[in-house]
Amino acid sequence: MFLAEVRAAAAEPEDESTCRILDAALDAYQEFGLRRTTMDDVARKAGIGRATLYRRFPQKDDLVTAVGLREVRRFIAAADIEISKAANAEDRMVEGFVAVVRGLREHRLLNRLLSSEPEAVLPGLTLHGGPVIALARGYLKEKIEEDQRAGFIRDFDAEPLAEMLARLIHSMVLTPEGRIPTRDERQMRAFARTYLVPWLRV
Amino acid sequence: MFLAEVRAAAAEPEDESTCRILDAALDAYQEFGLRRTTMDDVARKAGIGRATLYRRFPQKDDLVTAVGLREVRRFIAAADIEISKAANAEDRMVEGFVAVVRGLREHRLLNRLLSSEPEAVLPGLTLHGGPVIALARGYLKEKIEEDQRAGFIRDFDAEPLAEMLARLIHSMVLTPEGRIPTRDERQMRAFARTYLVPWLRV
Repeated sequence: MFLAEVRAAAAEPEDESTCRILDAALDAYQEFGLRRTTMDDVARKAGIGRATLYRRFPQKDDLVTAVGLREVRRFIAAADIEISKAANAEDRMVEGFVAVVRGLREHRLLNRLLSSEPEAVLPGLTLHGGPVIALARGYLKEKIEEDQRAGFIRDFDAEPLAEMLARLIHSMVLTPEGRIPTRDERQMRAFARTYLVPWLRV
Repeated sequence: MFLAEVRAAAAEPEDESTCRILDAALDAYQEFGLRRTTMDDVARKAGIGRATLYRRFPQKDDLVTAVGLREVRRFIAAADIEISKAANAEDRMVEGFVAVVRGLREHRLLNRLLSSEPEAVLPGLTLHGGPVIALARGYLKEKIEEDQRAGFIRDFDAEPLAEMLARLIHSMVLTPEGRIPTRDERQMRAFARTYLVPWLRV
């Protein structure tokens, strides 16, 4: 469902005014949080009229979802650039892990909401988080299958492996505290090379 | 901290009246949830006076923590029995995965609270969940190191592997929806054998 929305949204190019609205909403959410940001705040920041804003996003939740989906698309696009620079399947695993962990650690909106309004975001990332796991799994599965088609790794069902990777990251987003390195990139690469690369040899 | 508490609690045998209190509280939490259970309910169910209950557990939170710690100890003890029946390191991974997933799926208190009072349990299992991850990691690390000392698996740093396993389960508890089998035990064993056993060949 979420996956379909992301794909549909990705296929539909944003017009300039939608883009302005989403930029203004993202700014406001990062600054004031979801709860305290009103539709009026967003209209004012975007420099458009209330009527225009409500025509495009009839409810506050529609706007929150649209901003969230754009952040997910941007996140995946940024990680994809790092992954595509890697020379082989093993390096794609290592550089992908580093890019994703760094990207999540530095993600301003996600960290802002997790720390100031956990009650607003935790249910959607946990009990109702199936679509988020599915989205990450779908992306990772495609990446693994590309390397399988190219003959770089053996031909096995990539979906469970993709989901294990998605779930490792899922747990690290929700509970960063632990013994898997998340700050020192040299240590992160060493961890991924020792403990994650062997996953490709299913 | 939590680990130390669990170990201290495990070292200290429960007297009969504490055991009666914890049984009564567990019953009440499973039936009415945390929020709606009062200290009076627990005293009545346990057949003891309020004064006795408050002497042992001065605050409601102390009682909740004590019940939670006992559930964790029981859970680990039950999983440990299944793991100890397995013939070799690979089977311990497979049977351990099946026992843990089944045990969590059937855990009445955990599932009750996740569905009826998520706001009461989610923060402790996510943003403040470091101690829970540490507890699971500590237990799994010991199990892996036993097999390393016995020469059944290679000698590598078991801690990151233990944490990856703990985090896979962590994500599956919080968001069961996904493509990793959790109900059909034949499928669960096949998944663990194909995708988790290779983790032991770090």
